[in-house]
Amino acid sequence: MFQINDNYQKLPGSYLFSTIAKKVAAFSEANPDKSIIRLGIGDVTQPIAPAIIDAMHKAVDEMADVKTFRGYAPDLGYEFLRKAISDNDYKARGCDIEADEIFVSDGAKSDSGNIQEIFSQDNRIAVCDPVYPVYVDSNVMAGRTGTYDAATGMWSNVIYMPCTRENNFVPEFPKETPDMIYLCLPNNPTGTTITKARLQEWVDYANKVGAVIIYDGAYEAYISEDNVAHSIYECEGAKTCAIELKSFSKNAGFTGVRLGYTVVPKELKCGDVSLHGMWARRHGTKFNGAPYIIQRAGEAVYSDAGKAQLKEQIAYYMKNASTIKSGLQEAGFEVYGGVNAPYIWLKTPEQMTSWEFFDYLLEKANVVGTPGSGFGPSGEGYFRLTAFGSYENTVAALDRIKAL
Amino acid sequence: MFQINDNYQKLPGSYLFSTIAKKVAAFSEANPDKSIIRLGIGDVTQPIAPAIIDAMHKAVDEMADVKTFRGYAPDLGYEFLRKAISDNDYKARGCDIEADEIFVSDGAKSDSGNIQEIFSQDNRIAVCDPVYPVYVDSNVMAGRTGTYDAATGMWSNVIYMPCTRENNFVPEFPKETPDMIYLCLPNNPTGTTITKARLQEWVDYANKVGAVIIYDGAYEAYISEDNVAHSIYECEGAKTCAIELKSFSKNAGFTGVRLGYTVVPKELKCGDVSLHGMWARRHGTKFNGAPYIIQRAGEAVYSDAGKAQLKEQIAYYMKNASTIKSGLQEAGFEVYGGVNAPYIWLKTPEQMTSWEFFDYLLEKANVVGTPGSGFGPSGEGYFRLTAFGSYENTVAALDRIKAL
Repeated sequence: MFQINDNYQKLPGSYLFSTIAKKVAAFSEANPDKSIIRLGIGDVTQPIAPAIIDAMHKAVDEMADVKTFRGYAPDLGYEFLRKAISDNDYKARGCDIEADEIFVSDGAKSDSGNIQEIFSQDNRIAVCDPVYPVYVDSNVMAGRTGTYDAATGMWSNVIYMPCTRENNFVPEFPKETPDMIYLCLPNNPTGTTITKARLQEWVDYANKVGAVIIYDGAYEAYISEDNVAHSIYECEGAKTCAIELKSFSKNAGFTGVRLGYTVVPKELKCGDVSLHGMWARRHGTKFNGAPYIIQRAGEAVYSDAGKAQLKEQIAYYMKNASTIKSGLQEAGFEVYGGVNAPYIWLKTPEQMTSWEFFDYLLEKANVVGTPGSGFGPSGEGYFRLTAFGSYENTVAALDRIKAL
Repeated sequence: MFQINDNYQKLPGSYLFSTIAKKVAAFSEANPDKSIIRLGIGDVTQPIAPAIIDAMHKAVDEMADVKTFRGYAPDLGYEFLRKAISDNDYKARGCDIEADEIFVSDGAKSDSGNIQEIFSQDNRIAVCDPVYPVYVDSNVMAGRTGTYDAATGMWSNVIYMPCTRENNFVPEFPKETPDMIYLCLPNNPTGTTITKARLQEWVDYANKVGAVIIYDGAYEAYISEDNVAHSIYECEGAKTCAIELKSFSKNAGFTGVRLGYTVVPKELKCGDVSLHGMWARRHGTKFNGAPYIIQRAGEAVYSDAGKAQLKEQIAYYMKNASTIKSGLQEAGFEVYGGVNAPYIWLKTPEQMTSWEFFDYLLEKANVVGTPGSGFGPSGEGYFRLTAFGSYENTVAALDRIKAL
């Protein structure tokens, strides 16, 4: 008689964003006259840039002609895309990452969920708290997290690194030594980040204790300050301790286009075993490459026209971020993030819980955000708004909040 | 100090098709004047059908306009595609599979590698021998297969079901009781299949012993005989014991477009736990949907124009299959498959091993095929040719083989 992976049974409740969707649907049904503005889920709203659209049309046409048709892609990504990534995201920044250290995928969510597979069941993970739920949930499914305590919202075998206003949202080295450290910088959900000097300390720490850093750089394109690293490989020694995950969702609006990549440097080893070889084997066995058309879209992100158009798109969203931040401050809120990231993290007023503030904002202002507690226990009492709406909606939402 | 998943270290050598690629590259470099015809890897060569190209252009244009732009897709697939699949692949055949039992993915390779995740580490798998390598390799990575015996090419904790000419390539119920049974029908690599009546016996067997069948229907579009089931759900009781995996790679040439789906019926349970819910959770945590553009391409597969164009494409490949089959028979080979599948499986002549015949065919005829032993020990002494080349190349390859 077959049995299931019973680690799945340990996962509490439903996914955060499903709960939000249900609450919003219920409110909407009860109040059909209210116009709801969604600044909750981190999904983009601006259309794909013209240079990328052109590249996709061209690639679609190639697929229509027997002379230019493409079948199976190379498992690890087309050379044209891997080279564009290596040149633009790494070599141009002085990071010595070669094209063959880059693994193209269907998105950073897949990679951040799958990367734990190449590690031992016995490794202990450390995560920031609050945190993107996928890091923890994928380790729960793999049986690495111990037991869940519903009272605290914590797993017995996960090392939590609280990020709150008390420590300026900068994670501190944990008391217990982790084997795998998940860092998302600039951070989702807090919208804050750390300096390059502080990131260097993390790299040194990981090399010293023999930990691997899973570095999620999904929001890199939003960095505006000079002392913030665009890649962990800007830090000395990162190639022996860090895997970097990157997304095209937030820098190019590919949430529905699906493209990402992971860097596994050849120098990253456990004893004699190259993690690069292991991830290549994982990709070769359980993945068959991202679509040719989408990889051409990715290449266009790095074209001159693409870069110029995307710079405008990011400026558009960052104008929203600044509108939200200054509007909330005017309204008397305590606000973080929004400078190097498209997320604004606010302290809920009057000691409201995150979910109380969610309901309050939905009912009184018809604005949807994300309760901080959904990202982990230390998110309680905070709330996330995203800059990914339209400018008009963002302004309207802030007007409503200011009028509360 | 972090540790790796040491199950990866157990995987022998490199992936079959990498070895073939290296041998062909070496031959080609040593013999630059020879024109090599590739009938090895199962990659298609015909361009994407016009109805599908049109649908992709239209979807690309939608992504360019803020009014029609699409961000994150529903995790489990767009309703328009899930409904088209349910209507055409299931309800039209009398199978009661609802749209919400269909999980859209980036391809059947991913699904066939990932599906084992929702099952217990202690489950014992049964596979046909020879077999598509992903089923076994993904279970090796999960630590489910015991130890490898290089002499026999077999894993200590895998139940093998030999498929050879002695049993007409029809797997027999194993002596030991498996928990998970992988069946690919029509079969890769043998190109053979089983009758619906025989498949019903497998469903009855699985329900009796409490096993789950992972049914890979990637080659379903090539079925030409009436007594062969197009879906396992044509068999009574399949919804309580079977998961079906489907690909768009072979019926619509999507090897480089990437789309597939998995059916997990709601009735499929382990005790009280619904596997449908588990796979939904897996998809929701580690996958972010197939690209909108590609899902529209999938929808066009089921349009009237798409159906007509793909019928021609399949007829084109099946003409190749019949050319290979009759050509080999004329040349005195013992040949199987090619009637309900795009693969031809031949017995190597004069007791050659599969790899001896590979080298012989490459050197003497400059034709590339796939050694049967690469698919498992019972593939030794067999060889696979695919019908996915161009007609001209297929005819030329057979002329060369006949002239040997």
